[in-house]
Amino acid sequence: MRKIIIGVMGPGEKATANELQNAYALGKLIAQQGWILLTGGRNVGVMDAASNGAKSSNGLTIGILPSGNQNGISEALDIAIFTDMGNARNNINVLSSDVVIACGMGAGTASEIALALKGNKKVILLTDDEESKVFFKKLLPENVYIVESVVDAIATAKAIL
Amino acid sequence: MRKIIIGVMGPGEKATANELQNAYALGKLIAQQGWILLTGGRNVGVMDAASNGAKSSNGLTIGILPSGNQNGISEALDIAIFTDMGNARNNINVLSSDVVIACGMGAGTASEIALALKGNKKVILLTDDEESKVFFKKLLPENVYIVESVVDAIATAKAIL
Amino acid sequence: MRKIIIGVMGPGEKATANELQNAYALGKLIAQQGWILLTGGRNVGVMDAASNGAKSSNGLTIGILPSGNQNGISEALDIAIFTDMGNARNNINVLSSDVVIACGMGAGTASEIALALKGNKKVILLTDDEESKVFFKKLLPENVYIVESVVDAIATAKAIL
Amino acid sequence: MRKIIIGVMGPGEKATANELQNAYALGKLIAQQGWILLTGGRNVGVMDAASNGAKSSNGLTIGILPSGNQNGISEALDIAIFTDMGNARNNINVLSSDVVIACGMGAGTASEIALALKGNKKVILLTDDEESKVFFKKLLPENVYIVESVVDAIATAKAIL
Repeated sequence: MRKIIIGVMGPGEKATANELQNAYALGKLIAQQGWILLTGGRNVGVMDAASNGAKSSNGLTIGILPSGNQNGISEALDIAIFTDMGNARNNINVLSSDVVIACGMGAGTASEIALALKGNKKVILLTDDEESKVFFKKLLPENVYIVESVVDAIATAKAIL
Repeated sequence: MRKIIIGVMGPGEKATANELQNAYALGKLIAQQGWILLTGGRNVGVMDAASNGAKSSNGLTIGILPSGNQNGISEALDIAIFTDMGNARNNINVLSSDVVIACGMGAGTASEIALALKGNKKVILLTDDEESKVFFKKLLPENVYIVESVVDAIATAKAIL
Repeated sequence: MRKIIIGVMGPGEKATANELQNAYALGKLIAQQGWILLTGGRNVGVMDAASNGAKSSNGLTIGILPSGNQNGISEALDIAIFTDMGNARNNINVLSSDVVIACGMGAGTASEIALALKGNKKVILLTDDEESKVFFKKLLPENVYIVESVVDAIATAKAIL
Repeated sequence: MRKIIIGVMGPGEKATANELQNAYALGKLIAQQGWILLTGGRNVGVMDAASNGAKSSNGLTIGILPSGNQNGISEALDIAIFTDMGNARNNINVLSSDVVIACGMGAGTASEIALALKGNKKVILLTDDEESKVFFKKLLPENVYIVESVVDAIATAKAIL
């Protein structure tokens, strides 16, 4: 009965146009696989773009919000989980995802990758940030997958599951 | 796009036969309204019974788990959110529910009612524990609804939403 | 090496003059025992009064704050722990206290008592709220101690430790 | 009245002999400055070594524990804060530290550095892991300080405070 959940993590306010495009495409493809999309739930950046992508293909979207109220929530969420625990909710994001895809890089995203690895989760990195790939790949090689495209990310997720 | 979420809270291992029956019926009726059921997600007591009830009518079930891994999860969950934060997850349970229904009473349930009231959520009490009704009704009268049956609980939830 | 920690919980903005007076006296007596005082750390109500009481006798004061920054902190804290997790921090308050003393009553305080009982902690109730005493005493009789004065509360804590 | 808190973060079970030695020295020097030492509180690795170092110079030691009970606690803690929230407590570690010193590297440590940067905290890196220095320094240059020795770490902390 349990559904597969794919977490897409990435920058909020600082996301680049390319990251937003990738996030939207990831959300769309995740939905098309019949997987549930999980994000940090805010109405900005990779979270919002991925959720909108998933909804464009009638996927189910979950947001694990840092806040305890309705402010700043993505309009593209089906299910809003309010944690009121700020960035500590990043640990819930990754523990609840069968696979974590990092789309872009930033301090929040780095914390999610690190917490995922600490929790022995598999993480797929799709980012232009070369230093992050070198660092995380060395940190826990067998759990880190580096991909070059959205299509690769989905194929890798499929292989991992 | 956001779906309505009804939280059903109640005892785990110590739930009575009557509470389990009520929880199952609550889950079933919640699903029949098209609402999502949210529980604490474990495979015992009111959480498990409500989730099974919801699934019996093809509802969608979310569990907010105290643990960080697969042990002790209800088989009747569609979506498992792993918090790994023990009873502190009770705050997430209530903040994420549009209405909270307490089915039975115990220390964990009491904490959820109190956290719900602290967060200005509406709480419906369905329990034989008279002292809890007197206490919580006095604590925040305008947010506490005392009901005598599962059907009353659902009707009250509908009126609140 | 580990020091004894006594948690004093109670209303914030809504604390009565009597509760504030009791909280100050509790903090003072806790410090005089050589115990550390733990509160919710905000600059209002029972938290603030107890912390000021402890400092008046050169005690050590810890505040477990709901916020992630300096706003609203009691001036009487030696050690500020910033959780940024709102009322979910109430579980940390009680798990970290060797004994919990509830001074007054409210939704937040009720959540702390309930979480303490869920975690099998001993709780001392000093409050005019009769309904809360009846409810919590019935909920877990062997862990709940009802006292009538600050001096009784401290004597009871000493007996429990 | 508020005391200065320095967080020392680093590997647990996998800490190297050199990291343990540095951690002990850091704890000792932190105590000698009159600062409070904050760690993750467990009885292994950098946490335990730093706490023992601080106690060797009569410092005050706080541990923010991932667990909710006494198992696995460092003997060198004066104050144990039980979160029962696993690695999500890493956010509390860094939010509660005036300066964070990373001594060594690992997934947990990386999550703490990232969460610290997300929360706009200053982080001092003392590690042989070159890739981590390159990555984090690029991520938020103005908040990351790279040092080559324990003495440098303390001097840098002093300059930051």
